[in-house]
Amino acid sequence: MTNRISKLQDWMKKEQIQMAFLTSTENIFYLSNFYSDPHERLLGIAVFQEEEPFIICPAMEMEEAKNAGWTSEIIGYSDIEDPFELLFQSAGKRVKKFEKIAVEKEHLNVSRFETLIKHFPEAAFVSAEEKLRELRMIKNEKELALIRKACSLADYGVKAGVAAIKEGKTELEIVAEIEYELKKKGVSQMSFSTMVLAGKNGASPHGVPGQTKINKGDFVLFDLGVVVEGYCSDITRTVAFGDIDEKQKEIYDTVLKAQTAAIEKAKQGMPCSEVDLAARTIIQQSGYGKYFPHRLGHGLGISVHEFPSITETNNLSLTKGMVFTIEPGIYVPGIAGVRIEDDVAVLDEGVEVLTKYPKELQVI
Amino acid sequence: MTNRISKLQDWMKKEQIQMAFLTSTENIFYLSNFYSDPHERLLGIAVFQEEEPFIICPAMEMEEAKNAGWTSEIIGYSDIEDPFELLFQSAGKRVKKFEKIAVEKEHLNVSRFETLIKHFPEAAFVSAEEKLRELRMIKNEKELALIRKACSLADYGVKAGVAAIKEGKTELEIVAEIEYELKKKGVSQMSFSTMVLAGKNGASPHGVPGQTKINKGDFVLFDLGVVVEGYCSDITRTVAFGDIDEKQKEIYDTVLKAQTAAIEKAKQGMPCSEVDLAARTIIQQSGYGKYFPHRLGHGLGISVHEFPSITETNNLSLTKGMVFTIEPGIYVPGIAGVRIEDDVAVLDEGVEVLTKYPKELQVI
Repeated sequence: MTNRISKLQDWMKKEQIQMAFLTSTENIFYLSNFYSDPHERLLGIAVFQEEEPFIICPAMEMEEAKNAGWTSEIIGYSDIEDPFELLFQSAGKRVKKFEKIAVEKEHLNVSRFETLIKHFPEAAFVSAEEKLRELRMIKNEKELALIRKACSLADYGVKAGVAAIKEGKTELEIVAEIEYELKKKGVSQMSFSTMVLAGKNGASPHGVPGQTKINKGDFVLFDLGVVVEGYCSDITRTVAFGDIDEKQKEIYDTVLKAQTAAIEKAKQGMPCSEVDLAARTIIQQSGYGKYFPHRLGHGLGISVHEFPSITETNNLSLTKGMVFTIEPGIYVPGIAGVRIEDDVAVLDEGVEVLTKYPKELQVI
Repeated sequence: MTNRISKLQDWMKKEQIQMAFLTSTENIFYLSNFYSDPHERLLGIAVFQEEEPFIICPAMEMEEAKNAGWTSEIIGYSDIEDPFELLFQSAGKRVKKFEKIAVEKEHLNVSRFETLIKHFPEAAFVSAEEKLRELRMIKNEKELALIRKACSLADYGVKAGVAAIKEGKTELEIVAEIEYELKKKGVSQMSFSTMVLAGKNGASPHGVPGQTKINKGDFVLFDLGVVVEGYCSDITRTVAFGDIDEKQKEIYDTVLKAQTAAIEKAKQGMPCSEVDLAARTIIQQSGYGKYFPHRLGHGLGISVHEFPSITETNNLSLTKGMVFTIEPGIYVPGIAGVRIEDDVAVLDEGVEVLTKYPKELQVI
């Protein structure tokens, strides 16, 4: 029994929940180390207060679940079996009466929910998500090591992108070169679609890389991340291609100052809101407040967006083991967009900055 | 009002459904031409029997919805507004009594479903998915043109992959070169993770490209597709690197014969099952039946897997405008895996084969 499952069970006992049935790739991976996207097929992990948990999966994935290190029961089903029937049988052998069942209400679909309700008409269904978010928020050393590796590859991705900048090249060509270099290093999955935005495109909060060509005097914004054994990184750097004007420099300096101030502010016991405000205040005082329309950052780990959320209203205090992004930006429509983003981990003292690509204004 | 929405309304009248509230990126795109993945934010399209439909989306996406060609109402919400409140207000202005509401039961999550139930406690909730699948199954000329373009780029991807084969190169390096060449052609999205599998890896139904190096005597299997303006392609080719043995040749010839037979069988009025069996029978008669463990193919369009499903039990008859894959394979564990996949469109007479990369055994 893993420590993670024990913690979930402690919560279930306290809340008098007889079964937690989790179905998202991320939470199944977190609890079992088995990473699988079953598409439309059912994949689930059932956890009970005392009884043995089990994984239910397509029969052809049973071996992989075992190889991932899962030592409790694995129930495989073929394409002609009804996986819910098997789930109900196995759950019924463990517990006689289900009064409260926890599911992922933001992940489970209505069709499956109705199947559960039909079988457990007396049960109340509660959300398991908040508890899982809380557990996943604090990373252990093994998780930190994987995120560090993912961050180091993200640094390499930015390096490859900067090296690829050339007058007249398109954003998509540079995306292609970055991902090519990363795949050659063994990266098989990016955390999200790689962003390379040139000039005015970087000033749109919804920019998507396309056929826009890079011209002298442009900022080029890179936002990318990679997945290493299930854990994500996320970095943003903005560099200048050729000479930029004073206004652009001022925007860059303001973002860098704000980003540095937030990193200095982050430490155990500090509320998330204070970290956000450390950056936001600098940007506001420079007169760019309305051009910084998003939160300062987000937690990351198995998901590229998880908890804690670094907003000006989140009073949660930082705790050792939290990993999150610090990514202020200023986007002046039609002029320029600059964002600088690092991933940090909360230590006993201050934070460790996991992404290390230089941040001083780089003119290519 | 688009023709697609009219057809949905005809069905709603017949089924006495007062509102269809759809939330998947694919179905919203199908009905409105607005393509957006809002992540955790709510994006929905509400359709009524007679009254004006509306889109509800984050305020910053309103412009994009309009630019996509949506001329009915667009309701934008900010991060501090409750989008469901706005939904209920706007729906309530259109219809006084909701007795039956259609939602996507395989897409909508429990949390949102509970919000709907709370507001419409008297309403029955039915599934909209089957109707949408039926509508999306028949492609018009414009859709076919986009799929043709996506298929032509998929051909180009295979060509790039074959050109990249070299002794000692890894699967991932070849994936990188394929996607690099496609991005240079302006492709910004693949239909799914590009597969390049060498030797024995191709014989695993769950192979994932990795650091395996290509060696002489290997089959190399490519499975890839691209998205063009929202429409997908999907192609598989298997080529030999250096001399292969008689057994491998026999497997290749059997798959090719089966694939060709299925293409010849496919035409208007033919049940899907007969098309599957045309290929399956040939593979079974060659003694490889148990090494062909999957259906012959699947529909494709906005999703890379949609309807019709080409299985030995699906009695649905082919109709003009259907687009699907024909992809028999033989996977002998530890020996070799071969799959050949084309995308076809049902015409007045027979089918048009949309993917055109050669299929005769190619020895590199």
